[in-house]
Amino acid sequence: MPRRFIHQLGPQEHVDQVFLVSQKQLRSNKNGNLYLQVELSDRTGSISGRMWNAGDFEYRGFDDGDYVRVEGNTQLFQGAMQLIVTAINKARFEEVDESDFMPLTPAEIDKLVGRLTTHLRGMNNPHLRNLADCFLLDKDFMSKFTRAPAGVKNHHAYTGGLLHHVVQLMDVVQAVRPLYPQVDGDLLVMGAFVHDMGKTEELSYDRGFAYTDEGQLIGHLVMAVGTLERKAQEAEKLSGEPFPSELVLRLKHMIVSHHGEYEFGSPKLPMTLEAVALHLLDNLDAKLHSFHLLMRDDPNVDSSWTTYHANLGRKFFKGSGKGD
Amino acid sequence: MPRRFIHQLGPQEHVDQVFLVSQKQLRSNKNGNLYLQVELSDRTGSISGRMWNAGDFEYRGFDDGDYVRVEGNTQLFQGAMQLIVTAINKARFEEVDESDFMPLTPAEIDKLVGRLTTHLRGMNNPHLRNLADCFLLDKDFMSKFTRAPAGVKNHHAYTGGLLHHVVQLMDVVQAVRPLYPQVDGDLLVMGAFVHDMGKTEELSYDRGFAYTDEGQLIGHLVMAVGTLERKAQEAEKLSGEPFPSELVLRLKHMIVSHHGEYEFGSPKLPMTLEAVALHLLDNLDAKLHSFHLLMRDDPNVDSSWTTYHANLGRKFFKGSGKGD
Amino acid sequence: MPRRFIHQLGPQEHVDQVFLVSQKQLRSNKNGNLYLQVELSDRTGSISGRMWNAGDFEYRGFDDGDYVRVEGNTQLFQGAMQLIVTAINKARFEEVDESDFMPLTPAEIDKLVGRLTTHLRGMNNPHLRNLADCFLLDKDFMSKFTRAPAGVKNHHAYTGGLLHHVVQLMDVVQAVRPLYPQVDGDLLVMGAFVHDMGKTEELSYDRGFAYTDEGQLIGHLVMAVGTLERKAQEAEKLSGEPFPSELVLRLKHMIVSHHGEYEFGSPKLPMTLEAVALHLLDNLDAKLHSFHLLMRDDPNVDSSWTTYHANLGRKFFKGSGKGD
Amino acid sequence: MPRRFIHQLGPQEHVDQVFLVSQKQLRSNKNGNLYLQVELSDRTGSISGRMWNAGDFEYRGFDDGDYVRVEGNTQLFQGAMQLIVTAINKARFEEVDESDFMPLTPAEIDKLVGRLTTHLRGMNNPHLRNLADCFLLDKDFMSKFTRAPAGVKNHHAYTGGLLHHVVQLMDVVQAVRPLYPQVDGDLLVMGAFVHDMGKTEELSYDRGFAYTDEGQLIGHLVMAVGTLERKAQEAEKLSGEPFPSELVLRLKHMIVSHHGEYEFGSPKLPMTLEAVALHLLDNLDAKLHSFHLLMRDDPNVDSSWTTYHANLGRKFFKGSGKGD
Amino acid sequence: MPRRFIHQLGPQEHVDQVFLVSQKQLRSNKNGNLYLQVELSDRTGSISGRMWNAGDFEYRGFDDGDYVRVEGNTQLFQGAMQLIVTAINKARFEEVDESDFMPLTPAEIDKLVGRLTTHLRGMNNPHLRNLADCFLLDKDFMSKFTRAPAGVKNHHAYTGGLLHHVVQLMDVVQAVRPLYPQVDGDLLVMGAFVHDMGKTEELSYDRGFAYTDEGQLIGHLVMAVGTLERKAQEAEKLSGEPFPSELVLRLKHMIVSHHGEYEFGSPKLPMTLEAVALHLLDNLDAKLHSFHLLMRDDPNVDSSWTTYHANLGRKFFKGSGKGD
Amino acid sequence: MPRRFIHQLGPQEHVDQVFLVSQKQLRSNKNGNLYLQVELSDRTGSISGRMWNAGDFEYRGFDDGDYVRVEGNTQLFQGAMQLIVTAINKARFEEVDESDFMPLTPAEIDKLVGRLTTHLRGMNNPHLRNLADCFLLDKDFMSKFTRAPAGVKNHHAYTGGLLHHVVQLMDVVQAVRPLYPQVDGDLLVMGAFVHDMGKTEELSYDRGFAYTDEGQLIGHLVMAVGTLERKAQEAEKLSGEPFPSELVLRLKHMIVSHHGEYEFGSPKLPMTLEAVALHLLDNLDAKLHSFHLLMRDDPNVDSSWTTYHANLGRKFFKGSGKGD
Repeated sequence: MPRRFIHQLGPQEHVDQVFLVSQKQLRSNKNGNLYLQVELSDRTGSISGRMWNAGDFEYRGFDDGDYVRVEGNTQLFQGAMQLIVTAINKARFEEVDESDFMPLTPAEIDKLVGRLTTHLRGMNNPHLRNLADCFLLDKDFMSKFTRAPAGVKNHHAYTGGLLHHVVQLMDVVQAVRPLYPQVDGDLLVMGAFVHDMGKTEELSYDRGFAYTDEGQLIGHLVMAVGTLERKAQEAEKLSGEPFPSELVLRLKHMIVSHHGEYEFGSPKLPMTLEAVALHLLDNLDAKLHSFHLLMRDDPNVDSSWTTYHANLGRKFFKGSGKGD
Repeated sequence: MPRRFIHQLGPQEHVDQVFLVSQKQLRSNKNGNLYLQVELSDRTGSISGRMWNAGDFEYRGFDDGDYVRVEGNTQLFQGAMQLIVTAINKARFEEVDESDFMPLTPAEIDKLVGRLTTHLRGMNNPHLRNLADCFLLDKDFMSKFTRAPAGVKNHHAYTGGLLHHVVQLMDVVQAVRPLYPQVDGDLLVMGAFVHDMGKTEELSYDRGFAYTDEGQLIGHLVMAVGTLERKAQEAEKLSGEPFPSELVLRLKHMIVSHHGEYEFGSPKLPMTLEAVALHLLDNLDAKLHSFHLLMRDDPNVDSSWTTYHANLGRKFFKGSGKGD
Repeated sequence: MPRRFIHQLGPQEHVDQVFLVSQKQLRSNKNGNLYLQVELSDRTGSISGRMWNAGDFEYRGFDDGDYVRVEGNTQLFQGAMQLIVTAINKARFEEVDESDFMPLTPAEIDKLVGRLTTHLRGMNNPHLRNLADCFLLDKDFMSKFTRAPAGVKNHHAYTGGLLHHVVQLMDVVQAVRPLYPQVDGDLLVMGAFVHDMGKTEELSYDRGFAYTDEGQLIGHLVMAVGTLERKAQEAEKLSGEPFPSELVLRLKHMIVSHHGEYEFGSPKLPMTLEAVALHLLDNLDAKLHSFHLLMRDDPNVDSSWTTYHANLGRKFFKGSGKGD
Repeated sequence: MPRRFIHQLGPQEHVDQVFLVSQKQLRSNKNGNLYLQVELSDRTGSISGRMWNAGDFEYRGFDDGDYVRVEGNTQLFQGAMQLIVTAINKARFEEVDESDFMPLTPAEIDKLVGRLTTHLRGMNNPHLRNLADCFLLDKDFMSKFTRAPAGVKNHHAYTGGLLHHVVQLMDVVQAVRPLYPQVDGDLLVMGAFVHDMGKTEELSYDRGFAYTDEGQLIGHLVMAVGTLERKAQEAEKLSGEPFPSELVLRLKHMIVSHHGEYEFGSPKLPMTLEAVALHLLDNLDAKLHSFHLLMRDDPNVDSSWTTYHANLGRKFFKGSGKGD
Repeated sequence: MPRRFIHQLGPQEHVDQVFLVSQKQLRSNKNGNLYLQVELSDRTGSISGRMWNAGDFEYRGFDDGDYVRVEGNTQLFQGAMQLIVTAINKARFEEVDESDFMPLTPAEIDKLVGRLTTHLRGMNNPHLRNLADCFLLDKDFMSKFTRAPAGVKNHHAYTGGLLHHVVQLMDVVQAVRPLYPQVDGDLLVMGAFVHDMGKTEELSYDRGFAYTDEGQLIGHLVMAVGTLERKAQEAEKLSGEPFPSELVLRLKHMIVSHHGEYEFGSPKLPMTLEAVALHLLDNLDAKLHSFHLLMRDDPNVDSSWTTYHANLGRKFFKGSGKGD
Repeated sequence: MPRRFIHQLGPQEHVDQVFLVSQKQLRSNKNGNLYLQVELSDRTGSISGRMWNAGDFEYRGFDDGDYVRVEGNTQLFQGAMQLIVTAINKARFEEVDESDFMPLTPAEIDKLVGRLTTHLRGMNNPHLRNLADCFLLDKDFMSKFTRAPAGVKNHHAYTGGLLHHVVQLMDVVQAVRPLYPQVDGDLLVMGAFVHDMGKTEELSYDRGFAYTDEGQLIGHLVMAVGTLERKAQEAEKLSGEPFPSELVLRLKHMIVSHHGEYEFGSPKLPMTLEAVALHLLDNLDAKLHSFHLLMRDDPNVDSSWTTYHANLGRKFFKGSGKGD
């Protein structure tokens, strides 16, 4: 039987297949009976699972980050789908098709790396090309850069999410740069590459997605500055000539100012045209991506409006579907 | 002798040529002596002029909005260039070359109208194409749309400024739309066209640039909504079929939300992807344009930093010019 | 047996009577059993109802906006009263007394319309009187204006609520105007009439109360401006003389600025004395009305304080009742 | 020759009459020459005066708060009228007509006190009437209450300004109270009386208007609470029965919350209906008064707009004067 | 069996001992069955208790503020410990050991009073020493001052909490004062003493902890000003010489400004060095105390991070415990 | 004749002595005549100087950062003292007494370094002691650390200002740490040392005080993180054992969060007790220092209030001087 992906599940479905599990907890209900609660995911989304009358035995049968085989039935509870689990066990190796759990296939990731490389190798500024090579040739860095998510929650939390966002942003940069000759296009391409690279260390993503201690205490804006400094020194060694100090300074500034406002954690406001452009285009790409998914996955399927998103201060209009 | 444009003038230059005059005032200095103060402009910028010991006779010799022939000497005063005027008279018709006073030549404006038309006629949605035609065929509207400035101050205040910004924004929209299939590109093109059209009535621009009473009391966001409603009715008559109500609603929403935040005078936050994209791309185009000119025209010519702009909360970095 | 109105109900009462139903939902509890949840109202308030072990049959037996006959028992749950429903069916025509569901009787509404007309016909300015007549004679408009609620939630959500608030506000305007000769009293009366009229289209109120799509995307401040423009044109036709443009401009300004601050969705701040007065008196009437009801209906009956209202940042002091 | 009042003065007028003087300063111009700068006022407004080449002798010839006889000529300087002084001397007693310097005549003040008394004696609540009498019979208090200004700057700075505002506010309270039976009208009348009484000690007004040290360090909201406590104790003695503690508490709350928001110096938000009403009606009266005078006295006499008021974030629309 | 203190309790423990009870409520669950909910506390913290199928009999068996003997079992519910109660009865006198319910023993409180007295008697300024004595000798005041909590919630809610904070703050003041000779150290000591004394009346603490009506409507900042005025008058009588008015003014200012910002309820910003220092040191002491306890008592025992505290906008880092 | 220090100068004094010069500018007055403007300073403050009718010759006679001998006369202009210069020339070596220009003598700086060293060597944690030694032994670092100012303006702009603030802060830390055993005192001492060390590169201070490009674009909070990382690596080499990663993380967090709020440029809020304490104590020391000097040097010598400081939103109370 082919897999039913999570975003395909409707209410009252019977399910018997593999999921990725996280956030397992043993809880007691009001009567003091224990139950097991887990978060189950595949590459299309996640769903909460509850197993009634479960105990220590079930709880110890698997760990967060494991693939588990789950049997159960879906139901709608307080407007959200959940899965009433009747059996949950660590999956056997041959049961798992890893591609079911990654929104991006290895081939897609390779393709993204290809586009990334093309954008970077296509820069005219030899210093920046040289600097980019220092990153591209650093296997450890690239391994992290291609695996890191763009965030730990919702639509940003998937392997390759960071790479995906960066390459998409570079595409936008390339599309827009001919229209603004006053902006240094190479600097903008390079800025798009490095602006979020601190996330490779800010987040952990080997088993589920979370913030590292350093990520929470220091943050990716500050962390990336150190990485850039080290790579600029490497670039000097590689080329045998000094890396222009103003160039590295402009890149560092783009990194620390790219959230655009103090209240969003930027210690500096954008003070160059490239920093202004990076901030706004990054914002454009991130918002169009996440708002689109908010609307696509909104549970109010028969309303022309999404639920209210308190953090954004608004609902979104999905349209009446009456065509035009 | 060829004209010295305002942005070419250095200190201690003798000048005898035509300017556009505005904001004339008769003032008295501390000793009670009167002097005449005016703002003189050409297509490259503006400069303050002061004529010492002037009186009612000089004051009545011309009106704001006239072309005047001015003789005098430039000097640097408190970091800014000004012109000490020794003679100022209404210019004779044959002395004036109008092209000196418009950053955009009629030919350039025609070219912009051509690009505008191409963008609008290229839309796939027949309703929107039809609606666009109702604007393009409205001579009175187009006359205003091609003359209006984008603002009354600084770099936005020139004939054709609105058209210039709108066409530039449309170019950006076209560049970016293939990258975001989830966004309705035609709606975004049309939104770029209409978002600021209220400025044709919010501002007056026959003699100098100013706000109309309605502009100040109601504002271009609200004013454009009425215009759009009337044009949608025209489009229905023209085509003989109803204009899709959701489509006009989406356009109206893009207009009222395009400042993006309540504090910038938008009565609604962007609640569709097209409204989100319009807000951010409009912001991008406006900021890259105006910040670029702030940096280009900054009076601190030998500093790598502009003066502090209190309304923006920052200086801008022009660079050390040491090359990279 | 006489009706027990909702605001009279105490815990542990048996109920068998007609309610207006809305927000029906089929939900499942933790054990996966379905239950039906509804909101039941009459003219004194609303109460949640839950029917355990209900299913598709019960769910399809009626629609939101229907009158339903409900049998059940009240109980206190987490500080709030709810009704445990044992039977719910569409009511027969003869079971319903519509006056039980409208806080305002038709006679009361007629009386309010009478006061509205008196206020408007009593204006000295013939242009405004003329304009007011264009509204009063428009049957479709008046039908909506007398039915629309003032909001979709809580104490503002009842048929005739808009009219009620407007007439009350006009009373205040008339009381205050002799004290402020610098304010144009007629303009203030007319402003009170039109300031919220956009709500006739912003809200839907034929079956329950909700926002229309246009209401959410554009808002009643902007919507009313178009209505006013059309009526001013009618007034010109009716009278055969031009309607003073500044007068209509001042009214439009009062509409768009009456929320008083950008953050409350006004695209303009009040810039005339009449706009300032309208904003503050509207605020006075709305707050005294709603805070009064918050205090009257507060569930903490034996406390001298209401619950904390997070959106208002405070509790209200009901008094110790120890008399003075 | 009859007096030319300050709000009648145009440019280029010769003046020789008595003014009230304040803020005298000896300054030096750029060349190091000293001049005398003073603020001259009468009951219609104030004007800056400058006496060139003045020295210590002129400076010592009078004190702030004196009446001085001034000779000089008016002129417009940077958009504002000023007086170039040629002679300034302490006025002789017989030259001064005190009524020229008080916007309110003693008769007008008496009339205001009469209205105040009528409002207070008309309250139904015997406790509040009793409390009011304790104030009215306190000669020292009433002397201050009838002399204090409502503020130290602009339109609020005149003898009797506090009384004027309070009585006007009481009139509004009386006009509005029949419309809101849920509000305790007597409490609102009494609240209007005491809300700003702390200004009698916050400000000094024997010679010009200024803040006292206590006024700046503690503020009139807090200072009035102590006064009220003492008067409530007096009222108990006077009547021989206890003053209801909740009543005095409600009054104290109205005082400390009447600025309505934390950011305006209220340590508490209004939490009773009377406190809400007092805040909004106080606001109404203060704003209609001061905005009216801003518009009336605006120096841009031939514009339909006032200058921009940065602290209010707006201009005001005076109207095109084209009639309606 | 020795008492198990609340902060020692783990899941699945049987309990049979005395607690202090508060917030008793009779509730019904979804099925309409009643249960009893209470808050149980001892000096180490508090825990929720629920008794299923309880009714009016159990509810009336004790009052809030009573000591009760409770039998039951602990369990983890939704991440928090609770107690499933099987029996609850008013405790007999001999069952109660009051020291189990006070974080501070009488001896500790006496010791704190001793330190308080030493700090106050050690001041050099005789006026302040004299004023301090008026407080220390006022038995009623001291009785309240030594019993009042510092707040009604969490770590501030315990008998003696106000005294504890004040003495700790005085210790800090004494430690820091030699380093800042520009600050009047005596004033700072006295300010530390009186800054929060309004809490003795703002809060009620005889049976559980709550705000008084006056506390909520006026607040401890304003309430303390009146107390200080009365004590300064007493000091004058005691010493027979006038109390320096500026000194009492400076103390009043320190009280009303000690929250430091308008948004935290201070009607004035600190405008003296002593007021600035008091605000910051009070902040230091309060934050180090409460953040420390947040971290110590955080339920995520195996995480290096506390839960997210929305009101503080952050988590706290407890450390990985890997040592250093 | 002994030097008259700037803070001793009154109006109308003749001056002929050496100053440090900065910000030289050639300006033209309204009549087009040039004059020279300079800022003159010694260790007690700075004063503006103007030389009328100066030209290119005078302008080129010295550079910013030179010691110059100046002859002229003081005068009060618009409330501020200035110097009308009649002669200005580069000073000869033997005319300059460097101690007149440094608020701190070399001996005082040595003493501060001594206290710094004592504080650092006194830490119990061997890792931190080791790390501190890496800084203390780095001559280049210490040379900068002992010369850097704490800011570029006003009271923070003097050689050694950074060191002065840091040592003073350490003294406070030592005084307070015994009172808070929950805080790691060594970490707080080390945090006080490194929190502002980024200023050694953020500012330039060889000739006058200014921001470096990197200082403005990146800021000292971010810059210090890189420095700390490098020193921690040195410490590892020095000691031959790994530096605890959590310890360096905690220090980095203290640096990036020490401004305490996003709006003051901290990309992270304080999330450890040491970071909270560092932020508040840093604030205490900086404010008591600068507010004290604002009050001491306030030009309103005969008022009990300073001028209004718009950036701080307040005046300061200097006291009536009537004693207490």
